[in-house]
Amino acid sequence: METSGKAANNLKLNTDIVRRILVDFIRDEITNAGFRKGVIGVSGGVDSAVVVTLAAEALGKKNVLAVLMPYKTSDPSSVTDAEALIEQLGIRSETVNVTPMVDAYIDKSPSMDNVRKGNVMARQRMIVLYDISARENALVIGTSNKTELLLGYGTLFGDVACAINPVGDLYKAQVWQLADALGVPRRIVKKKPSADLWQGQTDEAELGFTYKKVDQLLYYLIDERRNDKELGEMGFGKAFVEKVKRIVQRNQYKRRPPVIAKVSHRTLNIDFRYARDWGI
Amino acid sequence: METSGKAANNLKLNTDIVRRILVDFIRDEITNAGFRKGVIGVSGGVDSAVVVTLAAEALGKKNVLAVLMPYKTSDPSSVTDAEALIEQLGIRSETVNVTPMVDAYIDKSPSMDNVRKGNVMARQRMIVLYDISARENALVIGTSNKTELLLGYGTLFGDVACAINPVGDLYKAQVWQLADALGVPRRIVKKKPSADLWQGQTDEAELGFTYKKVDQLLYYLIDERRNDKELGEMGFGKAFVEKVKRIVQRNQYKRRPPVIAKVSHRTLNIDFRYARDWGI
Repeated sequence: METSGKAANNLKLNTDIVRRILVDFIRDEITNAGFRKGVIGVSGGVDSAVVVTLAAEALGKKNVLAVLMPYKTSDPSSVTDAEALIEQLGIRSETVNVTPMVDAYIDKSPSMDNVRKGNVMARQRMIVLYDISARENALVIGTSNKTELLLGYGTLFGDVACAINPVGDLYKAQVWQLADALGVPRRIVKKKPSADLWQGQTDEAELGFTYKKVDQLLYYLIDERRNDKELGEMGFGKAFVEKVKRIVQRNQYKRRPPVIAKVSHRTLNIDFRYARDWGI
Repeated sequence: METSGKAANNLKLNTDIVRRILVDFIRDEITNAGFRKGVIGVSGGVDSAVVVTLAAEALGKKNVLAVLMPYKTSDPSSVTDAEALIEQLGIRSETVNVTPMVDAYIDKSPSMDNVRKGNVMARQRMIVLYDISARENALVIGTSNKTELLLGYGTLFGDVACAINPVGDLYKAQVWQLADALGVPRRIVKKKPSADLWQGQTDEAELGFTYKKVDQLLYYLIDERRNDKELGEMGFGKAFVEKVKRIVQRNQYKRRPPVIAKVSHRTLNIDFRYARDWGI
């Protein structure tokens, strides 16, 4: 079965080493790009809690700005949990209620479904975060984990938008381990994951499977490149494997830059290729 | 001199061939991704005019939705020029005034400068365009040209955001040629390029050089990979070359996905690499 002891071990982190790698990553990327400060949208969830904790360690607490961006339907405990974390870390914070920005658009379309509304909220938060980063001369540090990025469970140009992402190579199960090691408040580590875009939303209900189950499959599929036969022998159901593979593939566009039509000798993202920090 | 006859010829397009390539590109990319329709933000400027004209040819006029998104300070002629084009093409259009969305945020920060305000406007337009694309089951077709993309003269997650971009490999000088060949109204082809984010703004005043001059330099620099010595011999001033090279390099981050810290065997955008349309 996919939840066997051996399987679970594959996702086990050496949290000491990973913590050091990610702290160095944040410090190096921010300073090499000519900055000293980071801004992070802190939701009260575990991913942003881990990122803000790592950033405080990497940059010093005065160089980290946590931005809380509640919407009128956000669970009030999201804000109180975020505030408890900010207090514990001793970092700066700022609250911008995104309700007027969101409602200025969605109130005009009464038939808009929750997914479209959620995308508007996530993108309004991106606008706030990027504007604050410009004001502060800081970089936006992202909080999307590997599970979310692979499943496309995030909003393009919304919560996925960032300059650097320290947790994009950690599955959700690994983010939880790191949160524990970093001393993130128990309430945050233990709560059910939710994008908190509408009342009662939970990631696992929306996705239709648990993180425990999908993390394990994604690890075998992506990190170990296992084929269908091997996955079947491990106990993963054929329908589940097919479903997850389809989701990962269908969301590839969220992970790549736009496609540009090639008509010249050197086209951006085709033959004009440099590292992201080229020349800095 | 950089504006010699030979130089100008390098940027000369075979508009018949390029038109055919770009029409095929739009049709193939949209249909291969499982869509039939495109939505385009039409500003009244020449870039979006070219894109919407190509899209109407590629997808059929009923499958192209032009979205006009004026702000209260937008030049009224932007809307009337866009409307004249839409009428000429016979495509569908929709107008969303972004003033309430923009002002819901910027009114709270009286000290916000024009650049920050412009970024908020461009990103609010992205929100509208992407939401409409979801409602219409369509893809967002981008309008940023090669000059803008190289100079970073556009807003990340704003006007630069798109699913596919047919003009991202054309310098501004080439967009003008194609516009003429496509029969874009003269008023649009002849007007001074402007992001129209604030009154009196023009691209060339803001950039500090003309498109004619910078297009020629970028062509030699990027497409022909000429070095400083050769560029000097061609008549480009050393300070101008250095300035443009710095701008191109400094804006590289806008053209690449976020940097993810590598801690596993296969990391997104590092060793997990597929084409954007992988698996579709």
